[in-house]
Amino acid sequence: MYTEICKKLGIEYPIFAFTHCRDVVVAVSKAGGIGVLGAVGFSPEELKEELDWIDEHIGDLPYGVDIVIPQKYEGMGDMSPEELEKELWKMVPQEHIDFAQKLLTDAGVPEWPDGTHSMGLLGWTEATATPLLMEALTRPKCKLIANALGTPPADKVKMIQDGGRLVGALCGRVKQAKAHKDAGLDFIVAQGGEGGGHAGDVGSVVLWPQAVAAAAPVPVLAAGGIGTGQQMLAAMSMGCAGVWTGSLWLTVEEAHAEPAQKDSLLNASSEDTIRSRSWTGKTCRMLKNEWTAAWDRADTPDPLGMPLQGLVSGDGIRRTARYASVGECQKVAFNPVGQVVGQINHIESTRAVIFRLVTEYVDALERINQLMPDE
Amino acid sequence: MYTEICKKLGIEYPIFAFTHCRDVVVAVSKAGGIGVLGAVGFSPEELKEELDWIDEHIGDLPYGVDIVIPQKYEGMGDMSPEELEKELWKMVPQEHIDFAQKLLTDAGVPEWPDGTHSMGLLGWTEATATPLLMEALTRPKCKLIANALGTPPADKVKMIQDGGRLVGALCGRVKQAKAHKDAGLDFIVAQGGEGGGHAGDVGSVVLWPQAVAAAAPVPVLAAGGIGTGQQMLAAMSMGCAGVWTGSLWLTVEEAHAEPAQKDSLLNASSEDTIRSRSWTGKTCRMLKNEWTAAWDRADTPDPLGMPLQGLVSGDGIRRTARYASVGECQKVAFNPVGQVVGQINHIESTRAVIFRLVTEYVDALERINQLMPDE
Repeated sequence: MYTEICKKLGIEYPIFAFTHCRDVVVAVSKAGGIGVLGAVGFSPEELKEELDWIDEHIGDLPYGVDIVIPQKYEGMGDMSPEELEKELWKMVPQEHIDFAQKLLTDAGVPEWPDGTHSMGLLGWTEATATPLLMEALTRPKCKLIANALGTPPADKVKMIQDGGRLVGALCGRVKQAKAHKDAGLDFIVAQGGEGGGHAGDVGSVVLWPQAVAAAAPVPVLAAGGIGTGQQMLAAMSMGCAGVWTGSLWLTVEEAHAEPAQKDSLLNASSEDTIRSRSWTGKTCRMLKNEWTAAWDRADTPDPLGMPLQGLVSGDGIRRTARYASVGECQKVAFNPVGQVVGQINHIESTRAVIFRLVTEYVDALERINQLMPDE
Repeated sequence: MYTEICKKLGIEYPIFAFTHCRDVVVAVSKAGGIGVLGAVGFSPEELKEELDWIDEHIGDLPYGVDIVIPQKYEGMGDMSPEELEKELWKMVPQEHIDFAQKLLTDAGVPEWPDGTHSMGLLGWTEATATPLLMEALTRPKCKLIANALGTPPADKVKMIQDGGRLVGALCGRVKQAKAHKDAGLDFIVAQGGEGGGHAGDVGSVVLWPQAVAAAAPVPVLAAGGIGTGQQMLAAMSMGCAGVWTGSLWLTVEEAHAEPAQKDSLLNASSEDTIRSRSWTGKTCRMLKNEWTAAWDRADTPDPLGMPLQGLVSGDGIRRTARYASVGECQKVAFNPVGQVVGQINHIESTRAVIFRLVTEYVDALERINQLMPDE
């Protein structure tokens, strides 16, 4: 399963692990894959702290950072992050804020310690994402930058590649794969509709081979539905150069999460997820619960777009993560995850997951080879 | 790729082709797979004619028949098909009939020659499906019966198996796979959300391996997203015993369809399908068009359930098939198909499709084997 991109990155297996947890990043890279830290939830100062820790613990191994570089907002391009946030808050109806707060209160989710109801803009805007990228680019062992939404602007692509790093981006449509290729990206992550987070609605089995054809010779990593080595073999059978996994790492030993949050994930079936705009403003796959149902009803506010809905829900994201086990928090918690959650039913160590993926892959390949007539 | 079910059926490749066209049934079986005739659209007399033709042309090769055996309607179980249809029509609001007819008229779709607006119940009820099954069971070369919706009743399972035939059923959920296994079925078709027709919403990559685990040792055939040998290898990598294909046969040379209908399919991308209740009353994947949009608007009638919506739409099904190239018929035509339609862009012969699947499978396997380190 050793592909060209393994060689370029100096990794043993083409297993890319997207995670918000630095411990998982380090453990994946140490087990022969490559950990990719999702940076969107961090301030630049927090990201610096996380990357310092990773640099200290990862030895000489490579890792990646995943950011979100959207286009600038028309007429707001020159604002500071603080000014931009202030302007954006003016566009949020009070009704939305009150509705979100009521859902949290009704479920018994404690207030944030400082009593504020805003988590800020996070890295969802050009103004807030750029400092995150700049921080990542100061790290020699950060060998890969992925953009979670859309093709990164040409100046950012050049900046990343000039430092000898690989730059890639996610896509959920064949058209986007072509756009990524035309922008000169080094790899493309094709995420099928099964996937957690911001996925499209074309299924992995149909999307992956079309993305591979559209992007060639740029390597495509398969995302959306990878939980086992059999699924990894399936992705590679369709021409993918590796797998981009996310859901798989939410419940590993090394993942920082409250037990109640891990339990929600471990107990969920593949039918317990939904694509909803209720957290980020864009369609995002997550566990179904009362929060997702509440924003979907006819007599409640409609979710705003990105990044406005993120302002409304940000306080809920941090509170439901921190107080995951308090009250009926899980009824309104943000648990982005793919349909593969139904196959993840117990806690494993990161190393065990990587080892399992590789072993299952090899066993499945052997079984398939045995179905062929002897030559 | 030779699996146990190939041996049982006496076929060379585990490629199952669901089609409404007898010519395709024969051509698939002759090319080494097995053709399965979808019987739901036929009256018993019509089915007899189709099976006579198949028996005459298929030589000694096996074929299958796909029917729909739903549970009986409470209190209607003893009615004749004619009485049942009359009772069901009483439950259809005139508003729905008028709305459907207006959509057809506005698109310039000619009336059915006899001026009627009803196609009848088709095989969607127990009363109408049973005669179809009985007809199929008179045919020695019909070696396989598949039930398209739900687990067949125990008496039907016994009847089919007693004749030395294999009986299977489709499923879109892991729970259904278990129920099928418990009912003693011989094979299970697991159809992911990508699939055309009545599919669930769990993606193939996630559904298939879970269905395989739940059904073991009953063999699972992969449906939903199979258009190439690479996809077939992917399905087999995840433990499936073969593939169940449908969309692939809509545009082959041998398929009876008006050129405009084939063109609609050949030109569609994977993003041009939608899951809609507007034709059969159950969620069904098909090409998006004005018909699907019209039934989805807030100010128009909501689709009825099955089989009532089928009474409303039946006239549209037959008229948009027969007059597919007339006026703006394609805007309101019934084109059930999976997302894999985006990968089907030119007309091939049935034999060429089977040959391509096998060749692509072998080539993909060879490529995958080359990625493994030499031992």
